[in-house]
Amino acid sequence: MEKAFSEADREAVYRAIHERRDMRHFVSDPVAPPVMQRLIDAALHAPSVGFMQPWRILRITCAEIRTQLRDAVERERLLTADALGERRDAFMRLKVEGLRDCAEVLVMALMNGREAHVFGRRTLPEMDLASVACAIQNMWLAARAEGLGMGWVSLFDPHEVAALLNMPAGAKPVAILCVGHVDRYYDAPMLETEHWAKRRSIDECVFENEWPSPRD
Amino acid sequence: MEKAFSEADREAVYRAIHERRDMRHFVSDPVAPPVMQRLIDAALHAPSVGFMQPWRILRITCAEIRTQLRDAVERERLLTADALGERRDAFMRLKVEGLRDCAEVLVMALMNGREAHVFGRRTLPEMDLASVACAIQNMWLAARAEGLGMGWVSLFDPHEVAALLNMPAGAKPVAILCVGHVDRYYDAPMLETEHWAKRRSIDECVFENEWPSPRD
Repeated sequence: MEKAFSEADREAVYRAIHERRDMRHFVSDPVAPPVMQRLIDAALHAPSVGFMQPWRILRITCAEIRTQLRDAVERERLLTADALGERRDAFMRLKVEGLRDCAEVLVMALMNGREAHVFGRRTLPEMDLASVACAIQNMWLAARAEGLGMGWVSLFDPHEVAALLNMPAGAKPVAILCVGHVDRYYDAPMLETEHWAKRRSIDECVFENEWPSPRD
Repeated sequence: MEKAFSEADREAVYRAIHERRDMRHFVSDPVAPPVMQRLIDAALHAPSVGFMQPWRILRITCAEIRTQLRDAVERERLLTADALGERRDAFMRLKVEGLRDCAEVLVMALMNGREAHVFGRRTLPEMDLASVACAIQNMWLAARAEGLGMGWVSLFDPHEVAALLNMPAGAKPVAILCVGHVDRYYDAPMLETEHWAKRRSIDECVFENEWPSPRD
């Protein structure tokens, strides 16, 4: 395995990283099956704690199930709005999912039986979710390279979605992924453009050796 | 923002995804500062739930703190070995961290004050960790493109590491990252080569519409 990437190849990786967006606007043209295969293959080649590979991917091809997922997201959207208090109206103006128009819907879940996996999880059991998130990020970057958009929706009751998709006890859905063609990518994160939140500065996020004391 | 990547650029992204490895073997040559900057910048451009950007990165430049982190990992390695029962000896033969030789050590943490962020987290509060994992995966792929290795160590007591690094209440370390030059990348995940675990088949991980029933 040759180590160095050419400068052009390195720049391509950074371009995917910097131009990837969490998309909510899609056009409904279908995604070619070999492209979907490459995206799923990218997810399955993520790192995982103790090589446990805790990810399970449910591809939703049934229109009725997709509708039920949309209904579940809509219920949680309203409950989240109520929980937001004074930010309720600002939240309700945002487009928070693209489930109607996207070409493909995938549900990413944690497998059941995870308690058997101790390596790297004795003190940090949530590393299984970290592994699934790495798989999703792989898929996100691959989608960007394919000229597709992807959005991660976490506005749902996991118990409700688990029941809908016949998940066994111990399995847990953690993402509804919308994948598909887009007219354009957002120039910046949509929640930044819509003034929901500002980008944090490097100084706010990167420290040396220890957390700065509050007076710094 | 132009949508399509050229075929060569797309292949570069897939190459990073497929050739990235969780590294434990490093050579100690320093990493050039602009390269470290690019890696950290890649992390900071990950997606985050509700654009909350919950990641905090502590770059460990103090040799004494690095030694204390190594000691913490070694303690947890032995406790994990004991917890593994019949797999104890197989685990003890594995190299599970590269903290001695790697050029750079970063600790990734969840910020404090996360309870103020409700968007996308009312029913799934752990989405903050998912965002940090996406940041780490960005850094992992960028490191591969730079010809560097990276390893994610989760063998530590988060309370102990939080105290060591002066973290405020509510902040939580989730990864000790080893970054640096490597002689070579593993051809396959080290835990696969060492027969710790097998790669799962696509049929085991990808379903259509619902979880298969146990009899399938």
